[in-house]
Amino acid sequence: MIHRLTLSDVLAEHARSRPLVTAVVDGETRLTYPELEARVARLAGALAGRGVGPGDRVLWLGRNAAAVLELLLAASRLGAVLCPANWRQSADELAFVLEDLAPTVVVWERSEAAAGLCGPGWIEAGAAYEEFLAGGPEVRDGAEHSPGATAEHGDDGSPVLALYTAAFGGRPSAALLSDAALIAHSAALLVVRQMEPGFTFLNSGPLYHVGTMMFCLATLQIGGTNVFMPAFDAEEVCRLVDAEKVTQAFLFGQMIDAVAAANAGGKYDLSSLRFVAHSPEWDAMITVDDSPWCRSKMGGYGQTEVGGMLTFLGLAPGGAGFAGRPSPLVQVRLLAPDGTEVAPGEVGEICARGKSIFSGYHDRPELNAARTAYGWHHTGDLGRREPDGTITFIGPKLRMIKSGNENIYPAEVERALKSHPAVRDAAVIGVPDERWTQAVKAVVVLEPGGPGASAEELVEHVRGRIAAYKRPRHVVFAEEIPKRGFTPDYDALDAAYGGGAYPGA
Amino acid sequence: MIHRLTLSDVLAEHARSRPLVTAVVDGETRLTYPELEARVARLAGALAGRGVGPGDRVLWLGRNAAAVLELLLAASRLGAVLCPANWRQSADELAFVLEDLAPTVVVWERSEAAAGLCGPGWIEAGAAYEEFLAGGPEVRDGAEHSPGATAEHGDDGSPVLALYTAAFGGRPSAALLSDAALIAHSAALLVVRQMEPGFTFLNSGPLYHVGTMMFCLATLQIGGTNVFMPAFDAEEVCRLVDAEKVTQAFLFGQMIDAVAAANAGGKYDLSSLRFVAHSPEWDAMITVDDSPWCRSKMGGYGQTEVGGMLTFLGLAPGGAGFAGRPSPLVQVRLLAPDGTEVAPGEVGEICARGKSIFSGYHDRPELNAARTAYGWHHTGDLGRREPDGTITFIGPKLRMIKSGNENIYPAEVERALKSHPAVRDAAVIGVPDERWTQAVKAVVVLEPGGPGASAEELVEHVRGRIAAYKRPRHVVFAEEIPKRGFTPDYDALDAAYGGGAYPGA
Repeated sequence: MIHRLTLSDVLAEHARSRPLVTAVVDGETRLTYPELEARVARLAGALAGRGVGPGDRVLWLGRNAAAVLELLLAASRLGAVLCPANWRQSADELAFVLEDLAPTVVVWERSEAAAGLCGPGWIEAGAAYEEFLAGGPEVRDGAEHSPGATAEHGDDGSPVLALYTAAFGGRPSAALLSDAALIAHSAALLVVRQMEPGFTFLNSGPLYHVGTMMFCLATLQIGGTNVFMPAFDAEEVCRLVDAEKVTQAFLFGQMIDAVAAANAGGKYDLSSLRFVAHSPEWDAMITVDDSPWCRSKMGGYGQTEVGGMLTFLGLAPGGAGFAGRPSPLVQVRLLAPDGTEVAPGEVGEICARGKSIFSGYHDRPELNAARTAYGWHHTGDLGRREPDGTITFIGPKLRMIKSGNENIYPAEVERALKSHPAVRDAAVIGVPDERWTQAVKAVVVLEPGGPGASAEELVEHVRGRIAAYKRPRHVVFAEEIPKRGFTPDYDALDAAYGGGAYPGA
Repeated sequence: MIHRLTLSDVLAEHARSRPLVTAVVDGETRLTYPELEARVARLAGALAGRGVGPGDRVLWLGRNAAAVLELLLAASRLGAVLCPANWRQSADELAFVLEDLAPTVVVWERSEAAAGLCGPGWIEAGAAYEEFLAGGPEVRDGAEHSPGATAEHGDDGSPVLALYTAAFGGRPSAALLSDAALIAHSAALLVVRQMEPGFTFLNSGPLYHVGTMMFCLATLQIGGTNVFMPAFDAEEVCRLVDAEKVTQAFLFGQMIDAVAAANAGGKYDLSSLRFVAHSPEWDAMITVDDSPWCRSKMGGYGQTEVGGMLTFLGLAPGGAGFAGRPSPLVQVRLLAPDGTEVAPGEVGEICARGKSIFSGYHDRPELNAARTAYGWHHTGDLGRREPDGTITFIGPKLRMIKSGNENIYPAEVERALKSHPAVRDAAVIGVPDERWTQAVKAVVVLEPGGPGASAEELVEHVRGRIAAYKRPRHVVFAEEIPKRGFTPDYDALDAAYGGGAYPGA
């Protein structure tokens, strides 16, 4: 009990320590921390009245809103779990989420896809949500006053947030994150981003994505201000940054270009933004920030299952590996499939242990067992330690080829192939081989109008970059690589190019 | 297991992530993180060979040395506890520590006081320690390889560090801090001090004091460099800052003056120090740092039992209360003796819950029960929330007066009295009172040669500052206040001035 700290506790502290600070801004709504605390207390009571208790799920189906944070904090107070789901999913995808998550309460924003699924108890965002909240008896902080919560919830890995991610077997799974993991992740982000009191974050990316959620939560942790907008809109970003003196927004790449273009006439003052340098126009509008996070252009490696970021480039200034070094609150190991650590410089699966790691996927016992093999969270991604100890992300570990008893990951060979200037795209499969069990076969797409390259030349190129036993024994040229999302469709490739004899198959 | 992070794990990660970084410098000794890891692995094996297992204590009796950090990390690997004790204690005090702590292993530096107590198995710092360490079988990271450690140690509040502190009943008690609490405290310090990779800390204060230890550990956490010196020496501080490009040292007040004086001729380059502004001479030698920690001149409230700092002035820029706001990883409540929260603006005991709170005192079950009443750590100090939510430290809660059913803390009344310009010192006791059970009696020492003040004038002064019922009903003038350390000797005052009828007495 004495060591407990939940998200709900963080709010309860801020309501005392920051009575005058604005916690959230959402359209016309502005709430100080005590006002947010009062609303969360009633919301927790209202949810408990609907039977929400420890471990139960609450589903948010809507765009960004302060209600997402309120529901998360109320869930934390009850030991329950909030899932903010992707509002833009199809009716079929939403139906899957509803069945998979089996939420006790759904709060929704009207949409065509959701309307067809709407059940009797669903609470519509807006007036109905306000009425629901207003009717709740107050559940104040501290498990001793909370009807449903156990004394130690938040210390035992029990989840508070569910985010759907990574499709395994064609359907997404809900990654479950505990209060402790989210708070630890926030602490790491506070360190690397050097967030200070007064930090104001514009939630301009979707809250069902960890990239936005992690900054929303770190802003809460330091007692800053979260500004919500329903969805990204370049002009509205400008207006809100100016009006609320926003420190940071969820922006990258083309979003930044769009904001800079929207403010080309200088209508809005964006100088409160302390952010990453991007273009001369952008840099002149904002204040380029010197924290390790911004200096390193937000570099690192992450995934939902680790709470957001696992490694930060900002912790490895001048380092060789672009993923940088681990967060101060985790350990990383590069493991072989048998759970042993690979030698420095060798490619292994990026595995992790530590304070910010998730608590598994909702209702996926077999997947959870596989991904926690040997006591380490297996990210499903491949990496390598450089001689200076920094980490390079290689690519997803979708499958493994076994040749002459050696493990060969397609992503590593593909990366070496794609570093040749004549290669536009490449994919690697394993084909049955009498002597080696499997042999590496590369399917290569050449740059149209480029210098071209022979199979021998490509094999030599690969040999210079990775261990010789990983080089392709067969090279075929193709017009294109079949894809599943961003990654090669290996099943299609196997069918087309004779793949087979994979280990365990 | 998947969420585990111990100090030993932090070292194991750094040995991989920072193979080229210098972890410790101590005289001629320089160790990279892999070298430190190798020594700690052997030291853990050697300690295990002496029977050190989970919960067992290892005692360090000596000045500052890299060995203190090595022993702490080896203890973490085994689930054991290191206590670095005050080397300058008398033989009687050391004998008490030996009996109280009952260490399995003692490592000591030769001193007159310790020599008389030296037992057969004691290991002397220097050559004998090196020989002991070199003979150990390696215990590598990961509980799976560790003979004595449980899988989850570090997650359950089991201690790794013991620091003797606050004399209750005339003898000190060993505050026990877990891996989790120390790591959480480091994370908070990393945030407020804005520590970055490359941070180099000079351990120029004693490591048996949490003020030095907390920066040693935060430096470890971020993968920086710890430089050790046996004890403070102004010229040696200058030499080491220059030679090792030290970022921060344990320095305050007169220590800073002494360092500035030692470098008055500009012999050493101290510009690598990023520290607190202090004097024109000092500021010209160093780089004045702009982190919240340094900007706020290291302001805040802390004690050993919370891992170091509980609140930071740097988290409350412009705030009314000089203790600032709580660390992002704790909650603070100001509680009345019955466990209820006092109203804002009222004085209550500073109580806390959260990630960095200690795990109780070694072998003090009754004291531990009292200090964790109502599920909150009771600091034994009094504080008040200001209207902006920031916290003011009032003074130690040594006892309480009960008058007309109201709680009155001497420290609050003394503070009000001492704010009068004519008052040099003051102490407040409770005297038996027929109507109110107790009445407040003030013992006041006036400034010699000052303006003087009548009893009525002082009572009026106090009435303007605190609630009327807390004002003294009796005022006596004295030549001096008897003291026990820095605080009034209330037993002597009661005897001399008729104190009595205290609640619970």
